[in-house]
Amino acid sequence: MRVLGVDPGLTRCGIGVVSGSGSSLRLDDLGVIRTPKDADIDQRLLALERELASWIERAKPDVIAIERVFSQLNVKTAMATGQAAGVAILLAAKSGIPIALHTPSEVKASVTGSGRADKNQVATMVKRILQLKEMPRPVDTTDALALAICHHWRGAGEARIKAAVIKERAREKAARK
Amino acid sequence: MRVLGVDPGLTRCGIGVVSGSGSSLRLDDLGVIRTPKDADIDQRLLALERELASWIERAKPDVIAIERVFSQLNVKTAMATGQAAGVAILLAAKSGIPIALHTPSEVKASVTGSGRADKNQVATMVKRILQLKEMPRPVDTTDALALAICHHWRGAGEARIKAAVIKERAREKAARK
Repeated sequence: MRVLGVDPGLTRCGIGVVSGSGSSLRLDDLGVIRTPKDADIDQRLLALERELASWIERAKPDVIAIERVFSQLNVKTAMATGQAAGVAILLAAKSGIPIALHTPSEVKASVTGSGRADKNQVATMVKRILQLKEMPRPVDTTDALALAICHHWRGAGEARIKAAVIKERAREKAARK
Repeated sequence: MRVLGVDPGLTRCGIGVVSGSGSSLRLDDLGVIRTPKDADIDQRLLALERELASWIERAKPDVIAIERVFSQLNVKTAMATGQAAGVAILLAAKSGIPIALHTPSEVKASVTGSGRADKNQVATMVKRILQLKEMPRPVDTTDALALAICHHWRGAGEARIKAAVIKERAREKAARK
């Protein structure tokens, strides 16, 4: 199975392609789609769609895994992320490729065992899992690669991940009280 | 000039088409695009795009005005709204139709004179401005119509609107202190 992970964003959209099965996963490709901050939003989304389409054509993924963002971000960032995610989801639908959405907590729990792992921990595990010689570069590809890995593993480990996330949420809820 | 106003949403996306110039504006068409809550997100965005495309084809607007959401909403709603807005913006870009984004405060200030007007006040003014016999129905079209009106007026009244919004923001900021 080949999974194309998309960490949606307008300024930087991380891409990571991971194939294989089970514990034997390998990095196929990675990159970052950028659109100019000073361009109009319609032109930025158009450029993002074009670049994403060429990634999909090149990678021919079986599934596109996209980050589902709930919290952490402010509303302005969430809107831009939502717009970028919308473009990615629509493009996948038009290409007839199934999508899967995973939250950052699910991705972190899947890759590191903890839904609250920091960026460095995630990057370390991505490097280890994909047997890379160094940390993934550019750094904006880390989450996209982690997403793709998460999707590979969620079939088998879904229950484990869900349990971890629910536990984290309960912990967070308790901490807020 | 004909403006197609889009109040983006996944469950309900309001549409209002307003043409004319200056104080002589008329309602051309209005409606709500709905996508089923229990359908997968990719199929919902695909359905939304298809419906929007047929609206654009029918209305042949000179401009598509889309609500730009910053605050008020929680992040989960903002993501869904962002995805829907992303689809609308991308479709406009592909159709070669210019877009304009207006915030809810700008729309309210444009139509009622106050960026903090309530829903009923906005609906009342939309009814008056478009010389409707009754309040716009379905109710989900109100904001889309107000958006289209706002866009018609922003050319002339932009400075006035901006000033009103800045004043409201300053007032809100002062109120928070």
